Amino acid sequence: MTTPSTPTRGYTASKDQLLARLRRVEGQVRGVEKMVDDDRYCIDVLTQISAIQAALDKVALGLLDGHARHCMREGAAEGRADEMAAEMMAAVGRLMKRG
Amino acid sequence: MTTPSTPTRGYTASKDQLLARLRRVEGQVRGVEKMVDDDRYCIDVLTQISAIQAALDKVALGLLDGHARHCMREGAAEGRADEMAAEMMAAVGRLMKRG
Amino acid sequence: MTTPSTPTRGYTASKDQLLARLRRVEGQVRGVEKMVDDDRYCIDVLTQISAIQAALDKVALGLLDGHARHCMREGAAEGRADEMAAEMMAAVGRLMKRG
Amino acid sequence: MTTPSTPTRGYTASKDQLLARLRRVEGQVRGVEKMVDDDRYCIDVLTQISAIQAALDKVALGLLDGHARHCMREGAAEGRADEMAAEMMAAVGRLMKRG
Repeated sequence: MTTPSTPTRGYTASKDQLLARLRRVEGQVRGVEKMVDDDRYCIDVLTQISAIQAALDKVALGLLDGHARHCMREGAAEGRADEMAAEMMAAVGRLMKRG
Repeated sequence: MTTPSTPTRGYTASKDQLLARLRRVEGQVRGVEKMVDDDRYCIDVLTQISAIQAALDKVALGLLDGHARHCMREGAAEGRADEMAAEMMAAVGRLMKRG
Repeated sequence: MTTPSTPTRGYTASKDQLLARLRRVEGQVRGVEKMVDDDRYCIDVLTQISAIQAALDKVALGLLDGHARHCMREGAAEGRADEMAAEMMAAVGRLMKRG
Repeated sequence: MTTPSTPTRGYTASKDQLLARLRRVEGQVRGVEKMVDDDRYCIDVLTQISAIQAALDKVALGLLDGHARHCMREGAAEGRADEMAAEMMAAVGRLMKRG
């Protein structure tokens, strides 16, 4: 539900899908909490954490894709193409180094 | 609170700290859901996702550390050192490739 | 030295800088070979490998940046914006997962 | 060929294999230099860089594995197990963050 003043983001088209994925990630994190609480084997907990990282990578790629397709196009039309490319590269760099 | 039959894991000593970190990660994921719901700028959402991944990496390193100090020592005492080293390397490989 | 028929890539502007960085990476790899040949301590060899990965990440970000600024703009002018965004996201995904 | 004073590292057993892999990586880096020199398409260069990073990750995992099997066992026998686990975790952390 967006009001007329809400900007349209690159991910708006797939916002429901994005939210569904994030809720699944939230459930995965709760699952890992339960594994730790139940004293499950460290290696099995680590496998689940890797699965969460993979799921977050997919969410991030979906956001980047929407950004490259929509926001950057709008930015280019406003003469801010270089600024936005620099900003996107900084985000990719953080994702590659993970924070 | 462990019953006598619960195995002692490498992270048992720091279980409370681990659970506190995971609950913070869960809160961060909920924060990202809210950002998406509020149509916040893609790049800001991506910055938060990188922060979650960095937090999960720290949790994973803490688990690995406990595993190397405790479980592997017990495993070595039982003649399973090579098997457990292979298992730990597979876990590290998954963390490096993220799932 | 380019012939008139050579396409101009996003990185052409900084091609010399890119080649200088890659030659430095090549030297770093040879340095690691020498460390292994000299039976240097595993952890020190791993530290050097991490430094090479960081240097390659920088080269990759430089290439991506040029691609986003130049190739994608040309692609957009030719009506291939979506195709090129998808292609770039696949490249980012490979970099995040490292191959 | 080791002299009596050369320490035995975890990777000594597979030193030839390790050196062969590193020389292959060195060749891959030279291949990327040639691609840049020939003005090859950015995305193709990036694909090759991801392949080099995957190859370096394998070398790193091989070194870590040898370290966990051999050096850490020797370290444990000398009462330095905790110190060496901390050192190994720092190396894994650098590999996950890439330097």
